Amino acid sequence: MSMSRHEASTGEQSRMLSRENKVTITSGLSPSYLQANLIILPSRYASDFRRFCQRNPVPSPLLAESSQRGSPFGWKSYIQGIPDSAVAANCDIRTDVPRYVVYRDGVPIHESQDLLEEWTDDHIAFLLGCSMSFESALTRAGLEPRHTTLDINNPMYITNIPTNPAGVFTGGTYIVSMRPYRRSELDRVRKTTRPYVLTHGEPIAWGWDGMARLGITDIDQPNWGDPPRARWGGKFSEAQGLTGEDDDIPVFWGCGVTPQQAVITAKVPGIILAHAPGHMLVLDVKEDDVLEKD
Amino acid sequence: MSMSRHEASTGEQSRMLSRENKVTITSGLSPSYLQANLIILPSRYASDFRRFCQRNPVPSPLLAESSQRGSPFGWKSYIQGIPDSAVAANCDIRTDVPRYVVYRDGVPIHESQDLLEEWTDDHIAFLLGCSMSFESALTRAGLEPRHTTLDINNPMYITNIPTNPAGVFTGGTYIVSMRPYRRSELDRVRKTTRPYVLTHGEPIAWGWDGMARLGITDIDQPNWGDPPRARWGGKFSEAQGLTGEDDDIPVFWGCGVTPQQAVITAKVPGIILAHAPGHMLVLDVKEDDVLEKD
Repeated sequence: MSMSRHEASTGEQSRMLSRENKVTITSGLSPSYLQANLIILPSRYASDFRRFCQRNPVPSPLLAESSQRGSPFGWKSYIQGIPDSAVAANCDIRTDVPRYVVYRDGVPIHESQDLLEEWTDDHIAFLLGCSMSFESALTRAGLEPRHTTLDINNPMYITNIPTNPAGVFTGGTYIVSMRPYRRSELDRVRKTTRPYVLTHGEPIAWGWDGMARLGITDIDQPNWGDPPRARWGGKFSEAQGLTGEDDDIPVFWGCGVTPQQAVITAKVPGIILAHAPGHMLVLDVKEDDVLEKD
Repeated sequence: MSMSRHEASTGEQSRMLSRENKVTITSGLSPSYLQANLIILPSRYASDFRRFCQRNPVPSPLLAESSQRGSPFGWKSYIQGIPDSAVAANCDIRTDVPRYVVYRDGVPIHESQDLLEEWTDDHIAFLLGCSMSFESALTRAGLEPRHTTLDINNPMYITNIPTNPAGVFTGGTYIVSMRPYRRSELDRVRKTTRPYVLTHGEPIAWGWDGMARLGITDIDQPNWGDPPRARWGGKFSEAQGLTGEDDDIPVFWGCGVTPQQAVITAKVPGIILAHAPGHMLVLDVKEDDVLEKD
């Protein structure tokens, strides 16, 4: 197959490109298809992890898990109205994400383009909603995210907001993604993303006071993704291709990298596998399938 | 009826005592029956409030709401396996809680023993899980809460942990309840309360470092309830009737007073009604009905 990044229009096409290692970050891939965060755990942690998601649905909205322990094929769906077979057909979770992180005893030890070596018959994979999945909706509302416009990766930050502990998953904090918007756009941004409850929903904080409450000290130094390009009080100029009269403020959403942070802070023993931030599994489910009506 | 506090064995009996203003705090009333937090909102906030609960299930687990707008009778159940009619029979939400707080524009203006004046045909009542509801389980496990032993009210504290915003409900923080335990008891305390997902589940923080992260500075000055009686590093003596070798540490759970704090911080306009902390609605549902199996 010689399909290029911008020719992938379905979730399955994007998974094939990932399997063949023809893509890196998935932002903008197969627009309107749901993208998912991934974490793969030894089965003894599965019960605690489901509770972790139940207790932290904003950063960790559970979409699906492996059809059975040890099988890299097939999904059990937690999305209302989506049968198991409609999550991601012909998917091999060991290969269909562009880049993975391998953790041993809570420490990231290496990154990999597949998990053919690391996957065992005791692993269970979990898929979590991703905020990239409401970006089509933002774009339709005239609120295209800056990183989409500029074709860069979304910045992500570690916060000091504790997640609710569940079993072994103690001591974690929220990870957030950030998109810059004008203050005058905030109400529409909140309203547009609010119904996407399975992909983090509305923002959890905004503005410089909101950033301070999250414990983020330098907006220009994200922990993952590309540094933001924004009109922070005139700091960035029109020379960078950004024009407009109003300053931007940072707007923060829960991020599905949060469970990885929980694994790190709790030093969870064993081999745990996850997607590399920004490198998602693209599903067959469409964004509108998870839109919750008021 | 001349039944006294300690003769109330069913939820309905406790509601009758509350209706006749024969009880104050409900701690220890009708053991094994679920106790519920209450908040009553103008209907225009109902959708945002359901989202608030969905996004903050640990402090605000939604159990039921009014059968219809403006009706003080009857419930719509959100508890799996519990039909609407089994939530609280013959209940009048305007009278069946021992003490209420009335808020105008986010400010508490007075307390009352009933809401016969304040209830309107535009109000909707919401019931939320309460951590008093796992106290029987703790007692059965040999971990009777101190405030139960001493027949005092559970201490509650305002924290600096932000709730996830939903619509008008922005700027709120977690309220927590606290029970002192020995560090050696912590694992059993966590495990015993974990399955009670609809009544706050396992603790969200513990120990002095956990207290600091919540932003609580003085454990002996709760925002509601009675000051704790505990062996804080020998501070309290055996003369107070507490014996034992090990020191206690504070253990904190999410608390259903949290939505009231959200109303206050967001200065939500209009007349909002709620239970006074510690003065709960006792339901017909039993604690074991909401126990979630692993």
